[in-house]
Amino acid sequence: MSFPAALLQAANLVQTRLDRALADLRPEPVIHAMRYAVSGGKRLRGFLVLESAAVFGIPASTAISAAAAVEALHAYSLVHDDLPCMDDDDLRRGQPTVHVKWDEATAVLAGDALQTLAFELLTDPALGAAQIRLDLVLGLAKASGAEGMVLGQALDIAAETAPSPLTLDQITDLQAGKTGALIRWSAEAGAVIAGQDPTPLRNYATALGLAFQIADDILDVTGDAEKAGKRLQKDAQAGKATFVSLLGLDAARHRAKSLVDEAESHLAPYGARAQSLIDAARFVIARES
Amino acid sequence: MSFPAALLQAANLVQTRLDRALADLRPEPVIHAMRYAVSGGKRLRGFLVLESAAVFGIPASTAISAAAAVEALHAYSLVHDDLPCMDDDDLRRGQPTVHVKWDEATAVLAGDALQTLAFELLTDPALGAAQIRLDLVLGLAKASGAEGMVLGQALDIAAETAPSPLTLDQITDLQAGKTGALIRWSAEAGAVIAGQDPTPLRNYATALGLAFQIADDILDVTGDAEKAGKRLQKDAQAGKATFVSLLGLDAARHRAKSLVDEAESHLAPYGARAQSLIDAARFVIARES
Repeated sequence: MSFPAALLQAANLVQTRLDRALADLRPEPVIHAMRYAVSGGKRLRGFLVLESAAVFGIPASTAISAAAAVEALHAYSLVHDDLPCMDDDDLRRGQPTVHVKWDEATAVLAGDALQTLAFELLTDPALGAAQIRLDLVLGLAKASGAEGMVLGQALDIAAETAPSPLTLDQITDLQAGKTGALIRWSAEAGAVIAGQDPTPLRNYATALGLAFQIADDILDVTGDAEKAGKRLQKDAQAGKATFVSLLGLDAARHRAKSLVDEAESHLAPYGARAQSLIDAARFVIARES
Repeated sequence: MSFPAALLQAANLVQTRLDRALADLRPEPVIHAMRYAVSGGKRLRGFLVLESAAVFGIPASTAISAAAAVEALHAYSLVHDDLPCMDDDDLRRGQPTVHVKWDEATAVLAGDALQTLAFELLTDPALGAAQIRLDLVLGLAKASGAEGMVLGQALDIAAETAPSPLTLDQITDLQAGKTGALIRWSAEAGAVIAGQDPTPLRNYATALGLAFQIADDILDVTGDAEKAGKRLQKDAQAGKATFVSLLGLDAARHRAKSLVDEAESHLAPYGARAQSLIDAARFVIARES
């Protein structure tokens, strides 16, 4: 299967699982906002969960709640990140952001409940033994909390008012939390569900996560806002240091390509079973959104 | 032990556990804000966890991470509830609220990471077998998400702009989510950890939660803001229906007292082992904060 087809298939499975999780809830605005927030998107994190599971022969029907969980968690982070007091974005995935379409209070609450939903999904017995599900819960908590994604977001906001632009090391540290930690959890999830050593996938994901962020910075400068579905060139306008501002466009592209090669090399132990993960790594630096 | 002494002892145990969970994190504002947000408070929910465990002979050292978890989750809900786009409160537990002391972005992120911390705490092996911890995770997710606390908060916000004040049934429904669900989870937690039937504790907590909210409404009208540590008479000023506005002060007091009697009756199967839970029920309608 081609990578775009595989990504779309994963996206559809994730959407179906999220639709099921959000069915039968009260018809309140906060519930509508939750459904809206989990619609669309590339589903790269969910794809990584399903494909890392497939490496070990674990079917999508077993791993799907973990894929849905990380997408619910990612969606919550986007809703809160778009708030006026945070990045103040009015466009996401080509649509008005949640606080624009509803209001700020609904956006705060919908994000809060999407985080809760992520942890609820990880208790799904389909994922396997209780200890496996607990390992997924603990890993997602570590990846998304005060040592992971939230820390990265806090560092990102602090950078906006810092007296001098961040260094390359500081930006690398920031992104390891902000986007890297969830990507790593996603890629490791398959090994956790299979009860196998997650080290190769962790190394793959660490390189992949950094490549992803560099590609995001490149996209912010060179991309088409319509294709990206969000406003671009915000970082440059804000005078924020990025991989592109620090390395230059050519060196940033070269670095991203090297990281993708490195990510691919970590998958060698899995042979052909990891082809779709290799495809995913190549995709993150070629994407237009 | 007297009830105030028992409550203080539980509060100290909870604080120590939360301090440990928040130790060794990076010295960023968001981490300071998390520590600030989990300081102080009555710790009634944590007390209910520890005392419901004690009914079954489970020591505090076993149950403490569940008590700390519900207090972290409660603290997150207060931080977000105090935001300008929500209740817009500048005072909490006698101190400036998080967004006043830091800023709104830090308050959003600190609340987010406190929710994450709650689920992380429930993976603590000290709580028992993996299945028990998963049951606690699922129960807390159900109690705090789109079918529980967040739903209650959303209904509360919607009530502010509703064309007509809520009815008694609607307010009872709202509070069952907003404050009742976490109180019920807390009281049931001891039975879950002990692997025992939580039904009597659930019935106790359902009555207790409603008594708690009625007492809160009474306190909002008759209380001393200094003792309460927060602004009072906000509901009356906003023209919101409360148990007091709908029932009148005397009938509200009578109803709260009946609920406390009912809560107490559900504890009969446990005999003297439930004395501190009975004391807690009497406390919720006598408290000044």
